[in-house]
Amino acid sequence: MDVHIPRDLEEKVRVDTVAREKEYAQELQREGRWLHLWRIVGQYSNISIFDVESADELHELLWGLPLFPYMDITIMPLTRHGSAIT
Amino acid sequence: MDVHIPRDLEEKVRVDTVAREKEYAQELQREGRWLHLWRIVGQYSNISIFDVESADELHELLWGLPLFPYMDITIMPLTRHGSAIT
Amino acid sequence: MDVHIPRDLEEKVRVDTVAREKEYAQELQREGRWLHLWRIVGQYSNISIFDVESADELHELLWGLPLFPYMDITIMPLTRHGSAIT
Amino acid sequence: MDVHIPRDLEEKVRVDTVAREKEYAQELQREGRWLHLWRIVGQYSNISIFDVESADELHELLWGLPLFPYMDITIMPLTRHGSAIT
Amino acid sequence: MDVHIPRDLEEKVRVDTVAREKEYAQELQREGRWLHLWRIVGQYSNISIFDVESADELHELLWGLPLFPYMDITIMPLTRHGSAIT
Amino acid sequence: MDVHIPRDLEEKVRVDTVAREKEYAQELQREGRWLHLWRIVGQYSNISIFDVESADELHELLWGLPLFPYMDITIMPLTRHGSAIT
Amino acid sequence: MDVHIPRDLEEKVRVDTVAREKEYAQELQREGRWLHLWRIVGQYSNISIFDVESADELHELLWGLPLFPYMDITIMPLTRHGSAIT
Amino acid sequence: MDVHIPRDLEEKVRVDTVAREKEYAQELQREGRWLHLWRIVGQYSNISIFDVESADELHELLWGLPLFPYMDITIMPLTRHGSAIT
Amino acid sequence: MDVHIPRDLEEKVRVDTVAREKEYAQELQREGRWLHLWRIVGQYSNISIFDVESADELHELLWGLPLFPYMDITIMPLTRHGSAIT
Amino acid sequence: MDVHIPRDLEEKVRVDTVAREKEYAQELQREGRWLHLWRIVGQYSNISIFDVESADELHELLWGLPLFPYMDITIMPLTRHGSAIT
Repeated sequence: MDVHIPRDLEEKVRVDTVAREKEYAQELQREGRWLHLWRIVGQYSNISIFDVESADELHELLWGLPLFPYMDITIMPLTRHGSAIT
Repeated sequence: MDVHIPRDLEEKVRVDTVAREKEYAQELQREGRWLHLWRIVGQYSNISIFDVESADELHELLWGLPLFPYMDITIMPLTRHGSAIT
Repeated sequence: MDVHIPRDLEEKVRVDTVAREKEYAQELQREGRWLHLWRIVGQYSNISIFDVESADELHELLWGLPLFPYMDITIMPLTRHGSAIT
Repeated sequence: MDVHIPRDLEEKVRVDTVAREKEYAQELQREGRWLHLWRIVGQYSNISIFDVESADELHELLWGLPLFPYMDITIMPLTRHGSAIT
Repeated sequence: MDVHIPRDLEEKVRVDTVAREKEYAQELQREGRWLHLWRIVGQYSNISIFDVESADELHELLWGLPLFPYMDITIMPLTRHGSAIT
Repeated sequence: MDVHIPRDLEEKVRVDTVAREKEYAQELQREGRWLHLWRIVGQYSNISIFDVESADELHELLWGLPLFPYMDITIMPLTRHGSAIT
Repeated sequence: MDVHIPRDLEEKVRVDTVAREKEYAQELQREGRWLHLWRIVGQYSNISIFDVESADELHELLWGLPLFPYMDITIMPLTRHGSAIT
Repeated sequence: MDVHIPRDLEEKVRVDTVAREKEYAQELQREGRWLHLWRIVGQYSNISIFDVESADELHELLWGLPLFPYMDITIMPLTRHGSAIT
Repeated sequence: MDVHIPRDLEEKVRVDTVAREKEYAQELQREGRWLHLWRIVGQYSNISIFDVESADELHELLWGLPLFPYMDITIMPLTRHGSAIT
Repeated sequence: MDVHIPRDLEEKVRVDTVAREKEYAQELQREGRWLHLWRIVGQYSNISIFDVESADELHELLWGLPLFPYMDITIMPLTRHGSAIT
């Protein structure tokens, strides 16, 4: 997920949206659906691993991100690797 | 990591290299240095998360992969995300 | 799915693999898991829609394609569109 | 079709255009010309399959989309696949 | 259409295929289905305009090209332009 | 030629420029210098074939397009194809 | 690091940010953490070599750049080369 | 060098900058440092050959272009070709 | 023009082809049709400027290059620049 | 510099070429013309900084690399950065 908040977004709106994004991300992490969340060094971007039941669930989850309108999201479906020990 | 094993690689060499790769990957996972390993659906590729002390350590680790000569590797340094709960 | 069968593949192997691919594709269509299959005009490529329970199921399905070693596959998770009537 | 509605589009215009888009899409689906319509997960984009008589008909159909001025459209002509069972 | 004839193709096969390609192209031009055919300067490539009834017809036509196995083909559906005088 | 008319262009200017573009295109077609003009389906773009004496003439012709400031133009020099029948 | 300062940034803000950027860059160079800094000829871009303990340190360092919001940064982890004499 | 003058640049500033650019380019041509200057057909771009003592000199020369802030510049270092007769 | 001579080309053929290429290039330079020829630093590539009457002439000239089968050629039509002093 | 040594290169030739490359690289480093040499982590590639008098010198230096035939080299001319302290 690459985040591009427009420079002309009202300060109050920006601060509020970022705060709601954080709350939303942490709630989903606590629910175990947002498994991992890392910052990419030097970029306003993250790498996230989701654990969802279906593509529909993932879409609703992403569509609900407060920063969604300002994000470019690339999705790669993952599965267990034959050499993984867990 | 995208894997491209040449079609003309001797069968015995291929089988042996893939086996050594698996052993190597599992040893590093047990050591806690290869944190996560996922297969990308529909591709002979994986997404891996490493936990290393330095770029030097990561290089030695990757250079030692039995399949290294047949891999295209892209690296993204990651750091803790401000919204991560762990 | 773009198919690139190597020119030096033995004729007998090529014919057999393509036949098994067709059989496999038709079996999956009959099961309702391979929902749609279209040829892209002027290319040895297809656009396919799968209806699967999970990323794991999709991976096994694709990994099992007889032509898998000669394919480049790009996957886009889809979900219901709000304007769809079905 | 990727949709990029400009942020400074008047709210009333945006809502009205999106509503007309939905109506237009559903009418074409009922006519059997817009065969399939899927949302791409995590993107304001869709994958659509059209069943039209000619390139001219497809052009008029697309040019008439209320959201057309805000869309990037990529077209791939499709034909029946030899392994399709329908 | 970009043509990439493999260097190791038998000379006799190459000459024969190129001759059949020319014959095929000229027959289709006489039938009025291959409307225009230009060489791109400095490249073993051409720009062609086809006049066909359907995507199916275009696919059969292209699939039948003797050089088809050695071609990369990109297709752009065209329609009448509002400023065209014919 | 891809056309990108800015959304904030004054309506009167837009209408006038598009009208002058049409007039200009038709005059050049009548002169036989703008040989073919097709609309690309689903895009505000065209494919054009010009018959000019020199690169200088082509440049003046294109530079004179009323919509030139809003266009991305890609040029491919063409020549007669050995298999063309005209 | 490619720098894209928006044209509508207030002059005073621009001058102040560029000055703070210079001060910040020179302080880090004196500390030995910003090892090399070169301008790419003909571009508002630079190539920099950092000597840091960890990805976390690099992220904080970059995130702190006064021009960070206007930069596109690409990172390549480096290690000692076997043929290097130092 | 691709030139992208912003549409909202004040007319007087635009005219003045373009005039100074021309003067600057011609002075450098007279000095023999700007060896060749060609317009790319159908684009607000040029191909230029410079004859300079060093990368530093080239950078100063380019940085001094009145249109520099509106240019994308790509540089390819050239040297004598073994088959050149001059 | 990027040159990619295949590694398995017979040594005698390679040497002969390169020699004929040089002769051909020098003859065209003497005729004034191959105006400039520069080597790109660090690449088996060149930048060339041709002065020809037509696209047809350029095509014949390039098609006749002894190394043509091993070249990727990109062509940009050029014209006089308004700021050029010659 | 990305290195792609062909798999079918004779072992003796490969070992000898790599050894000569190392010797060549170290000699140039001792002369002060090859200023820096870093390995990119996880890739058979390096980032190098050269200090040369001219493009001609750089070309001869690179052309002389024993591994040159197996390298893809990208060059970026650098100059002193205004914020550099050395």
